[in-house]
Amino acid sequence: MRFTRILHEQRPRWARIDDEVAHVLDASPIDAFAEGGDSGGARTPRVETTVPLASVHHLPPVVPPVFYAVGWNYRSHVAHGAALGDAKGVVPTRPEVGYRANNALTGHRSPIVVPDGVTGRFEAEGEVVAVIGRRLRRATREEVVDAIVGWTIGNDVSAREWQHADRTFWRSKNSDTFKPMGPWIETDVDPMTQKTTVRVDGEERASFATGDMIFDAADYLVEASRYITVNPGDVLWMGADTTCPIAVGQTVEIEISGIGTLTNPVVAETTPSPEGSPA
Amino acid sequence: MRFTRILHEQRPRWARIDDEVAHVLDASPIDAFAEGGDSGGARTPRVETTVPLASVHHLPPVVPPVFYAVGWNYRSHVAHGAALGDAKGVVPTRPEVGYRANNALTGHRSPIVVPDGVTGRFEAEGEVVAVIGRRLRRATREEVVDAIVGWTIGNDVSAREWQHADRTFWRSKNSDTFKPMGPWIETDVDPMTQKTTVRVDGEERASFATGDMIFDAADYLVEASRYITVNPGDVLWMGADTTCPIAVGQTVEIEISGIGTLTNPVVAETTPSPEGSPA
Repeated sequence: MRFTRILHEQRPRWARIDDEVAHVLDASPIDAFAEGGDSGGARTPRVETTVPLASVHHLPPVVPPVFYAVGWNYRSHVAHGAALGDAKGVVPTRPEVGYRANNALTGHRSPIVVPDGVTGRFEAEGEVVAVIGRRLRRATREEVVDAIVGWTIGNDVSAREWQHADRTFWRSKNSDTFKPMGPWIETDVDPMTQKTTVRVDGEERASFATGDMIFDAADYLVEASRYITVNPGDVLWMGADTTCPIAVGQTVEIEISGIGTLTNPVVAETTPSPEGSPA
Repeated sequence: MRFTRILHEQRPRWARIDDEVAHVLDASPIDAFAEGGDSGGARTPRVETTVPLASVHHLPPVVPPVFYAVGWNYRSHVAHGAALGDAKGVVPTRPEVGYRANNALTGHRSPIVVPDGVTGRFEAEGEVVAVIGRRLRRATREEVVDAIVGWTIGNDVSAREWQHADRTFWRSKNSDTFKPMGPWIETDVDPMTQKTTVRVDGEERASFATGDMIFDAADYLVEASRYITVNPGDVLWMGADTTCPIAVGQTVEIEISGIGTLTNPVVAETTPSPEGSPA
């Protein structure tokens, strides 16, 4: 199943995606998953109305209570980042989570807005994203696997000069629109056997085996849940193997086989911003 | 006015605090502030029922869409942190925000749970917290001041060995219960003229002028809002001047004059944890 959030009659709504249509739902598929457990069914969201997919205004598939992200989760990215001065080139030996901020989220097809003042490398990072569907605390690998409701795609847009100059990632990675996520959550896919492809204006710029991670989602969530309650709706962005320069006027696509393609145009900032923060 | 969230008949509810009672409200005072603007009144929450304050189960006063926190915002804390190896001792020259995670929030009087495996310095940091009540983007100082609905108190509990050993603050500052916040949001106070006092088992361990900050809330939010949409319900923890060791069996109080006192006992982890993540 594929589901996401869309803007329908000016309101954020849950929707199930089937081929070329979006079915607007009367309840949250994540709530249904969280409460239904393996029995399921009791609270299955019902279809209220159906609209053509091509006309849909996509929102981020979920606004997480906590937005987890991991860095340096592919060996070749560690080496590449070290060569460019982005990090020290040390391969992580423990699965440690980091964070991003919800204001930066935007949906499939919405613009990535390059703020005034950005200079130097401005880059896309295509990442697979685990979406949590059940509460986890002191979880086993099996419990984590059972608790992941599905997978989506994230673009960890990064302004590298700010990343180097600032004490935190506040504007280098968390400026408004720097975290496109979508186009939807796919419940029936094994991300570890997929391929991630990044295209700019239709031209392939990077591709890598999605599953070539140093640590997988279960590694991160078993370790995090020793100390942290992970909640339904939380997301875990799994890192990228390769970064790709993007610029105003271009369109960036992140495709992960078995999930879909996240597409966003890159635009210059105007005042006021054409895109507010997500609902 | 003082308002917060409490657990009432098993559900999280908004409440207004008057002397020794809590008035359960039918709507969010933050929504009322956000939508009412200067005219106000139209959506003023109404009182549904009143309960004795002493019997109240306090929740964190708000669960923020984005949880902002700043580090090294008092000059003597910068020097102290450098002496202990917590940081390089560089006084920040720009107001840059960082982040904490919602799973770590807990309310007034709830326990701070020391996880299994914590060794070394375990410390409280008493901080004043700005609670945002209106959307901010490219805001002026005056707009920021108008957008702050009130002020509360945070305890930025930190496990220093993890802070030094880990790549991020994920468990050193974001383990469950490491972010007590409360007891309520005070709307009528100027935090810059107040005094912060930290007590352990009733004995004063630290006190400092709350307003001796390197950058104030307006400095941080004007700068953040150049790139970031700050939303109603977001919180900004303003940093601490002094840290105080705390240990299992003790009770820590953070008092900020004009706001109130945030009190939390410190307990050892049991399995399962006595405190889940906040609603």
